Amino acid sequence: MRIVLLDSGLELVPPEMNYKGNSLLDINYHYRSMKRLRDWYKRGRPDIVHFSLLQLLSWPTFSGEIYVHTFDGKVIYVDRKTRIPKSQARFNSLIVQLLKYGKVPTKGEPLMVVTSYRLNDVINQPFLLFDERGDLTFNSELCGNVSVGIGAFQRGEFSDEVLSIPHKKISVSKSKIETFQVVCNILQKCFPLE
Amino acid sequence: MRIVLLDSGLELVPPEMNYKGNSLLDINYHYRSMKRLRDWYKRGRPDIVHFSLLQLLSWPTFSGEIYVHTFDGKVIYVDRKTRIPKSQARFNSLIVQLLKYGKVPTKGEPLMVVTSYRLNDVINQPFLLFDERGDLTFNSELCGNVSVGIGAFQRGEFSDEVLSIPHKKISVSKSKIETFQVVCNILQKCFPLE
Repeated sequence: MRIVLLDSGLELVPPEMNYKGNSLLDINYHYRSMKRLRDWYKRGRPDIVHFSLLQLLSWPTFSGEIYVHTFDGKVIYVDRKTRIPKSQARFNSLIVQLLKYGKVPTKGEPLMVVTSYRLNDVINQPFLLFDERGDLTFNSELCGNVSVGIGAFQRGEFSDEVLSIPHKKISVSKSKIETFQVVCNILQKCFPLE
Repeated sequence: MRIVLLDSGLELVPPEMNYKGNSLLDINYHYRSMKRLRDWYKRGRPDIVHFSLLQLLSWPTFSGEIYVHTFDGKVIYVDRKTRIPKSQARFNSLIVQLLKYGKVPTKGEPLMVVTSYRLNDVINQPFLLFDERGDLTFNSELCGNVSVGIGAFQRGEFSDEVLSIPHKKISVSKSKIETFQVVCNILQKCFPLE
């Protein structure tokens, strides 16, 4: 299984906001100045990626691959051996390093890498796109050799880049639920604890 | 079901650390000065309570009660209607308010309250204590009218206060897993998404 977090609200503060230095866009801190940005409500939510990665990377029986696709179209590979900080502040610093230098750690074997892939390159068929409006309900028979896409943004629709890839819409709940709850559901069903 | 987070690493910086003002003890920031404290490795982990409450409070089908028992023996009631911040910094500020004034919000109907109960008062039988060394594996037949205890500290053993209450040790995994993963497992099994 390849799990891809989609349209993730993960980026450095963009130049038009006139911030000094490198800092991660975070709606908790930049709410006012963000509202001038295009599609601001999909951006600046590193906490969504943080929680989801914490769950995936610490789940003892998980054996899939992990990619993070960002709002601005980057594709980040995350090695399953990565141990990320529990602290949001430290996670954000790590991501600033990653986006600035293209990999972390910057010396030695990298564990997270900004690849030169486009989303299209890392999605294999069948591609299950998690969406609360999906007709098909997720169940353990759908686990296996699939690409699984989960939105990692606050609200709004998937980007054209995502929707242009052939997909089956799958839901885990009729309610709108958090990204980390979709991850929890998939982990429970496809990678039962031992 | 009553879910109780046990021996949680949630407290203000204690007087012996000579900090000015009120601040939440957090191993991310106080690691060096904490190592002089008794049982320091069980303390200063508000992130564990944060992640676990986020999962419980945003799970659409969850219908249980929530208590947080702390390292120093406080028992905090958490109303299921509570919406807590996704930001760790804001969550920590909220908990400082809670520990300082005994409730939040301080005006109007409180959603989180430091009660005058002792742990013993809020645990009903049967009491399922989650521990990776438990003989019984958790399954959906164990859901229902039970008290469920989950450790919310980094490492070490449950306190005498916890262990003095008659309990059955239950495990979800033979591996040592994170508190939020135990929560995810219980939610999936006892409160399936609709």
